Amino acid sequence: MGKVLTLLTDFGTRDGYVGTMKGVIHRINPGASIVDISHEVPPHDILEAAYILYSAYKYFPPGTVHLVVVDPGVGSARKIVGLEADDYLFLAPDNGVLTFIVQQANVSQIVEITNEDYFLKPISDTFHGRDIFAPVAAHLSKGIVLAKFGKRIVAAAPRASSKGIKELKLAKAKATQEGICGEVIHIDRFGNLITNIDRQILEGFRVRGSGFRVRVGGEEILGISKSYADVEPGKFLAIFGSSGFLEISLNQGNASQALGAGRGQKVEVALL
Amino acid sequence: MGKVLTLLTDFGTRDGYVGTMKGVIHRINPGASIVDISHEVPPHDILEAAYILYSAYKYFPPGTVHLVVVDPGVGSARKIVGLEADDYLFLAPDNGVLTFIVQQANVSQIVEITNEDYFLKPISDTFHGRDIFAPVAAHLSKGIVLAKFGKRIVAAAPRASSKGIKELKLAKAKATQEGICGEVIHIDRFGNLITNIDRQILEGFRVRGSGFRVRVGGEEILGISKSYADVEPGKFLAIFGSSGFLEISLNQGNASQALGAGRGQKVEVALL
Amino acid sequence: MGKVLTLLTDFGTRDGYVGTMKGVIHRINPGASIVDISHEVPPHDILEAAYILYSAYKYFPPGTVHLVVVDPGVGSARKIVGLEADDYLFLAPDNGVLTFIVQQANVSQIVEITNEDYFLKPISDTFHGRDIFAPVAAHLSKGIVLAKFGKRIVAAAPRASSKGIKELKLAKAKATQEGICGEVIHIDRFGNLITNIDRQILEGFRVRGSGFRVRVGGEEILGISKSYADVEPGKFLAIFGSSGFLEISLNQGNASQALGAGRGQKVEVALL
Repeated sequence: MGKVLTLLTDFGTRDGYVGTMKGVIHRINPGASIVDISHEVPPHDILEAAYILYSAYKYFPPGTVHLVVVDPGVGSARKIVGLEADDYLFLAPDNGVLTFIVQQANVSQIVEITNEDYFLKPISDTFHGRDIFAPVAAHLSKGIVLAKFGKRIVAAAPRASSKGIKELKLAKAKATQEGICGEVIHIDRFGNLITNIDRQILEGFRVRGSGFRVRVGGEEILGISKSYADVEPGKFLAIFGSSGFLEISLNQGNASQALGAGRGQKVEVALL
Repeated sequence: MGKVLTLLTDFGTRDGYVGTMKGVIHRINPGASIVDISHEVPPHDILEAAYILYSAYKYFPPGTVHLVVVDPGVGSARKIVGLEADDYLFLAPDNGVLTFIVQQANVSQIVEITNEDYFLKPISDTFHGRDIFAPVAAHLSKGIVLAKFGKRIVAAAPRASSKGIKELKLAKAKATQEGICGEVIHIDRFGNLITNIDRQILEGFRVRGSGFRVRVGGEEILGISKSYADVEPGKFLAIFGSSGFLEISLNQGNASQALGAGRGQKVEVALL
Repeated sequence: MGKVLTLLTDFGTRDGYVGTMKGVIHRINPGASIVDISHEVPPHDILEAAYILYSAYKYFPPGTVHLVVVDPGVGSARKIVGLEADDYLFLAPDNGVLTFIVQQANVSQIVEITNEDYFLKPISDTFHGRDIFAPVAAHLSKGIVLAKFGKRIVAAAPRASSKGIKELKLAKAKATQEGICGEVIHIDRFGNLITNIDRQILEGFRVRGSGFRVRVGGEEILGISKSYADVEPGKFLAIFGSSGFLEISLNQGNASQALGAGRGQKVEVALL
């Protein structure tokens, strides 16, 4: 079986842009297994794409090529980068969309993609997804090594050091004497509010149990649940979601709508 | 070629949940051909998923694994079941989403899925689609027999008997002296109103021809058409749809919008 | 690797119609690589489908079968046609959806699809996508020659001659003494307004540079840009898009919303 190549874009599925990219990939690597991660990232929303990539990437087979095209700077001087980390390859514009990968994964090399031999000609002014990203990703999925596509930006470096590519300034949850102050970083289709509060920061206090009080948008939630069904339908709960972050949910309802809460909403956790 | 594995969820395609499940499946069975049936089931709408599964399942190759994850009870004590029927395998939460299959297909066995050897660890509290359903479906698509995943709930049984799993109480069309009383069970993208009136119940009177009068939401439709084009653009018609149920349509228009009709809308058929 | 088979419909992805078609295709040709071009064509919008097909088709591998099902006339006497052009095969209702292909590609044969041996039985009244288009496309992707499916409509003919199938009357941009009068033929997800003004007609004047003034919906744009980033965020620009047509865009914004402009909106280009 061929390698898996994933796609994450803000192209939507209406206009045929994604299908066109898949056509290009099939021409170059007919054996690739192409998987859509999402194409419904709101136009130009780099943070949203960064979060979705982070929540999904590590569930794919080693060797998977993850291609991200959320690229408001298409046609400008922004770089395109290829990155190797945790047995995966990533290809994306250098605009911060790989922030979580750079911060959380074990990066072994980063290359600036410049070798036009692997591009589709003529290169359009507006659709690098088709003319640059798709063909380069297809060649990567065929096993061509990253070094062939351009020059290395920074050699493999320990986690804390700058990797030479752009990173988003992420909101980080803060622990104070009274508790933890965090915020909502993603809202999913079910209206679950995913926060930036991870297990690690809560472990400084005590993980799970009835000892916590979570405050969000005027609501107060007691304790951290292990299942949506721990509370009555129509009641709010706090729960560790599938990405390892604390989420605010409404059993059989939409927490985001009920609270009128969006990305950036403050969430506080305190001991009772 | 590998086996086909279909996905039917209420996850939407925005958040990367479906892509993540596909990653898990590719890790376990790289040869599986994954086909999306729908991910746009309204959140927690079990009946909608049950209908869509029923309308689609039998058009796939024998041996196809049909995975359904519409699971408002995720994390609660609800069971997960594997079911073999009509040369297909079904995997779903035990919440009624397999009702049409249990009632219409030839069920040969039902197994409660409990064998954690086939689950992804650690199992999250909220995303069993990724941690239980996807890996079990992938192993099923590799040919591992159902019995390996847990204990049989009820042995193969004749159609009428209870199978030991949950069934939705479905509205059934009723034949009276004056005609047939049914209701709308699904509205599709084109605004077609699919009713629970099937050919069989109409055959008690007379199928097709000008002898029928259909009443729905104040409109009266004479006769049952064989094609949308049988009536003028902008006119209502009644027609047997592709799933074998009577549908109310508007030629080149949206019947649901024009009638202000939703699921549950009463539909009456009478002889002229 | 099997052949690529693309799908372009107005079915949406909610109801399972597309998944059902893929099931039918997998039964007949398990080796086909199925790629979605779009299923979000507005219901019955033939022009939209024609444009999307045109913008995407030539990026696929030679031998790809392109299946289009936007078919308001389903069940009426409208023909179904198979067309061979530029090393690709096309299958579609004869309603004009192949207009751009007929006008721009090198057509070598057109066949009316009538051979019921390749249809799914029984043929429903409303879902020819499942019962006719999907199985015929699957057989085409297996290499069965077009002539087997019906009789040739018109032998291969030079570009200008009628091909015997329906063509949409497309708006064409007109060159006058003062400049070029065109109109918007497609609006994409980002709100870019794609016009019917191509490079060729502009070359009669001068392509690119600061010598042009574009007028659209009360706005005046000076010059034709090479990148969205050529103008400040929030400013309008004119640019040659990825299909080779002039587009009106708003850097990091939605031009269609900002201008209140839809399909058919007039666009004028003049020399300064």
